[in-house]
Amino acid sequence: MASRVNRRSFLERALVAVGAISGGVIAASTGFVLAESKTPTEVQAADKDTSDDLSDHAAQMSPAAPHQQHSAEDIDRLHEEGLKKFLANQESPITAGKGGLPLETETIDGVKVFNLTCDEVMWEVEPGKIVAARGYNGAVPGPVLRATEGDRVRILVKNNLTESTTVHWHGLYVPNNMDGVPYINQDPIKSGETFTYEFTLRNSGTHMYHSHHNSLDQVNRGLLGAFIVDPKDPSSYPEYDREYIMVLNDLSLGFTINGKSFPATDAVFANQGERVLIRYLNEGVMNHPMHLHGMPQAVIAKDGWPVNPPQLCDTVDVAPGNRYDVLVEATEPGAWAFHCHVLSHAEGPQGMFGLVTAMIVQ
Amino acid sequence: MASRVNRRSFLERALVAVGAISGGVIAASTGFVLAESKTPTEVQAADKDTSDDLSDHAAQMSPAAPHQQHSAEDIDRLHEEGLKKFLANQESPITAGKGGLPLETETIDGVKVFNLTCDEVMWEVEPGKIVAARGYNGAVPGPVLRATEGDRVRILVKNNLTESTTVHWHGLYVPNNMDGVPYINQDPIKSGETFTYEFTLRNSGTHMYHSHHNSLDQVNRGLLGAFIVDPKDPSSYPEYDREYIMVLNDLSLGFTINGKSFPATDAVFANQGERVLIRYLNEGVMNHPMHLHGMPQAVIAKDGWPVNPPQLCDTVDVAPGNRYDVLVEATEPGAWAFHCHVLSHAEGPQGMFGLVTAMIVQ
Amino acid sequence: MASRVNRRSFLERALVAVGAISGGVIAASTGFVLAESKTPTEVQAADKDTSDDLSDHAAQMSPAAPHQQHSAEDIDRLHEEGLKKFLANQESPITAGKGGLPLETETIDGVKVFNLTCDEVMWEVEPGKIVAARGYNGAVPGPVLRATEGDRVRILVKNNLTESTTVHWHGLYVPNNMDGVPYINQDPIKSGETFTYEFTLRNSGTHMYHSHHNSLDQVNRGLLGAFIVDPKDPSSYPEYDREYIMVLNDLSLGFTINGKSFPATDAVFANQGERVLIRYLNEGVMNHPMHLHGMPQAVIAKDGWPVNPPQLCDTVDVAPGNRYDVLVEATEPGAWAFHCHVLSHAEGPQGMFGLVTAMIVQ
Repeated sequence: MASRVNRRSFLERALVAVGAISGGVIAASTGFVLAESKTPTEVQAADKDTSDDLSDHAAQMSPAAPHQQHSAEDIDRLHEEGLKKFLANQESPITAGKGGLPLETETIDGVKVFNLTCDEVMWEVEPGKIVAARGYNGAVPGPVLRATEGDRVRILVKNNLTESTTVHWHGLYVPNNMDGVPYINQDPIKSGETFTYEFTLRNSGTHMYHSHHNSLDQVNRGLLGAFIVDPKDPSSYPEYDREYIMVLNDLSLGFTINGKSFPATDAVFANQGERVLIRYLNEGVMNHPMHLHGMPQAVIAKDGWPVNPPQLCDTVDVAPGNRYDVLVEATEPGAWAFHCHVLSHAEGPQGMFGLVTAMIVQ
Repeated sequence: MASRVNRRSFLERALVAVGAISGGVIAASTGFVLAESKTPTEVQAADKDTSDDLSDHAAQMSPAAPHQQHSAEDIDRLHEEGLKKFLANQESPITAGKGGLPLETETIDGVKVFNLTCDEVMWEVEPGKIVAARGYNGAVPGPVLRATEGDRVRILVKNNLTESTTVHWHGLYVPNNMDGVPYINQDPIKSGETFTYEFTLRNSGTHMYHSHHNSLDQVNRGLLGAFIVDPKDPSSYPEYDREYIMVLNDLSLGFTINGKSFPATDAVFANQGERVLIRYLNEGVMNHPMHLHGMPQAVIAKDGWPVNPPQLCDTVDVAPGNRYDVLVEATEPGAWAFHCHVLSHAEGPQGMFGLVTAMIVQ
Repeated sequence: MASRVNRRSFLERALVAVGAISGGVIAASTGFVLAESKTPTEVQAADKDTSDDLSDHAAQMSPAAPHQQHSAEDIDRLHEEGLKKFLANQESPITAGKGGLPLETETIDGVKVFNLTCDEVMWEVEPGKIVAARGYNGAVPGPVLRATEGDRVRILVKNNLTESTTVHWHGLYVPNNMDGVPYINQDPIKSGETFTYEFTLRNSGTHMYHSHHNSLDQVNRGLLGAFIVDPKDPSSYPEYDREYIMVLNDLSLGFTINGKSFPATDAVFANQGERVLIRYLNEGVMNHPMHLHGMPQAVIAKDGWPVNPPQLCDTVDVAPGNRYDVLVEATEPGAWAFHCHVLSHAEGPQGMFGLVTAMIVQ
């Protein structure tokens, strides 16, 4: 979504040490304590050595009392290694595969045409953790569909799964036979078949598309994506300089933002003074209260409808099926933690994991 | 709650096929793909054949990764059969027992008198799933108590349970000794005894009544109901044409709306152009984000207090103990899915289940 | 937080019987059914006899169907005994240790200086339940830090734990190198070391401080506390007569309010006509919808930011990381139940437990 211009130069600047700690890790002028960068190959090799340390994620997911399995030294080391990997990931991806990219569209007779495939994919959620997932156009999340209120859109959905599927346009108000619930609105799209959805975009906002067939499995394993409808009248929506989309998920693939678990998550970058729009979409089965350090979040829309007046807060509790648009004024330079505040989704003795990223104000 | 006038004629009209799929199932003019109707006996006989397929509900309730146990054909067939049963249920109940009916009241010396019994009951939650429940007047939920702000009410509660109980009037502001918490406000009502509650209704809105003794068990297994207090000044509340109450519950009896799991849930019916009031009441132990397809929900009240301005959305996250009043303008004809968006409460390989219904605009 | 003046005289007044029930328990003029008071020693001796009855808390924490293990007589007896212990606790603590006390501060050259230690502690959550916890200044929650918007504060943090730690000032906007996330903002504070945080308080409100290192364990086991920043301009915040802070937690230490489970929780006291401010802070990993009986709650702030207009309700769903300020007009005399409405956090066959207290209006 966001421009990656100047990222390398920022990270290089950040490497100007203002203080040193063990292991060659240095404190950056941004306040970020940075590792020297590695190539993705080096990073992935290093990851293999510590992947066992990450194997207790599952234990953190269940509401049982945590117990100590790590020495004090291991806890520090693992926390530090997680941050190093996360920073390396901002320069060069530490996992294969990237979801949530914009989808090219072709306009035919005034209709914007999108092509989606539903695929069985092996998806790398974090370094070395490769899972049997399902994705649109081979990715988790699927590509971002984007158009403008009033547009006519046509979406061709080709089912390459081993079972039937359908697509529901969650939040969009569409004709009944386009709503995507099997046996209510349409027959399921059988394996190998293609179905064409076509409708006019009546309501703007942050919306979603996902399977509505065997959906606990299909959505949870990755048949999900963002559908952004820009308002016809741009003045009806606040101005912003940058935009980030965060599709939240849990359960089958672990705790993920845009299909990746920390340290493989993308940071939110901004230049000081910019206004950043963040769109949260919860496709999981648990509430995720998203907490940004350093600067308040102004909630300006819920499910694509204005929140009036905007509600300031530091933690936005996003329930399954909900979307929230929030604005952040990037006034504070430095790297700021940004994570789900259900700590069992975010930080254990093995360091930060799951629903964690950072906002980096340059 | 809502008038059932014209339901049969609507369903008959819906059977005018506009397209056929396998198995004699036909697409209705509403967009609903309808089965030919069965008698309740036929439906229940058919249910017995597939009840094993529904036995993995429990697995879906726990936060473990879903895994495939069904063939592609089975998944489609079970989704379709669920819809057929749900539609059959709108014509003629596919389960025994119906909760949430209005309770007759007698006015004695200016006091509206209601009679409640607390009963051990075997309750059919979905076809063939009969559980040891507890209910007021033998039903889950108990009958709807309804009166007007300013009314004096007297409720005689006869305890037919094997243990003590009390009744708390959740959301109503009553004198301290009427509030129903054992050893705080009153002694428990022993098995076989009757207790008389009497108070004046000070605050209007969507409220609840439920046990406050051994309540995780007693409430969760069915000692719960809606208490609707209409405002003295009707102009203080938005106008509506139809009204539906949805008591949400989970855990002991499974995921239920008004004591029934899909496909045994009641649809929400409306004529095009009508304004429908839906009152959500969460009596369970989990949050349930209720998602309506097709038309937005305007949240107008929380716990009986106005939400001002109303907040539009498509998914209302209802926490345990909360009630939300929402208005839906029934502008879009057809059948629209309506369900909790925690997918583990709503749709697995066995099709839709639990906290699922549909809104049908005729 | 609140004045304890007149508590003893209130409880003595309450002992004026207006009706008797079995076992010498008497109904108070407030509507509260009171036990004759015991000395803490008597209470704790009695607790030992019934502590086995409380051992099924863990079972209530998991989303499994409750089942009856107690006779009707036992259920009544245990409910009554819980209330007796709770009332005794209001006179004289029934558990050792008390968290959330104000922290003395010294002003040096215009800077308010606070001293915190991070300690391994054995903490008595409820009578006889002593757990391996972690606390600031030896207590759970840590002491309340309090200052005024615009103040310069310095907090010296001495780490007496067996492992490293850091402190994050959740909700406060501080310079990047003071934000407390290890390897992002600072190096971890090793065991035995002291770190000095210093910053100016830019934003008022109900905030928190807690560990941000190995935080699922460290925060959940007690390294948490309230940081209250009063507004520079008092007229910018509603007036109130009394103030209570409720730090909510779950998982490792059980379901606790301010580090204690019912019956060891503190009641909220008020004189009739007073306006009571309650500050909720959720430091746990689950949502806790807090339900007050008897009087509505007006939500006036979220995360320290105004909610405008205030939202009236009876149940406030507090998500992990969120804080809500609510005002209650203490108009209704008597004792009123006050608890999380997730019933598996509040009341089982063994009576009320966990996230339960009462508001007592004198």
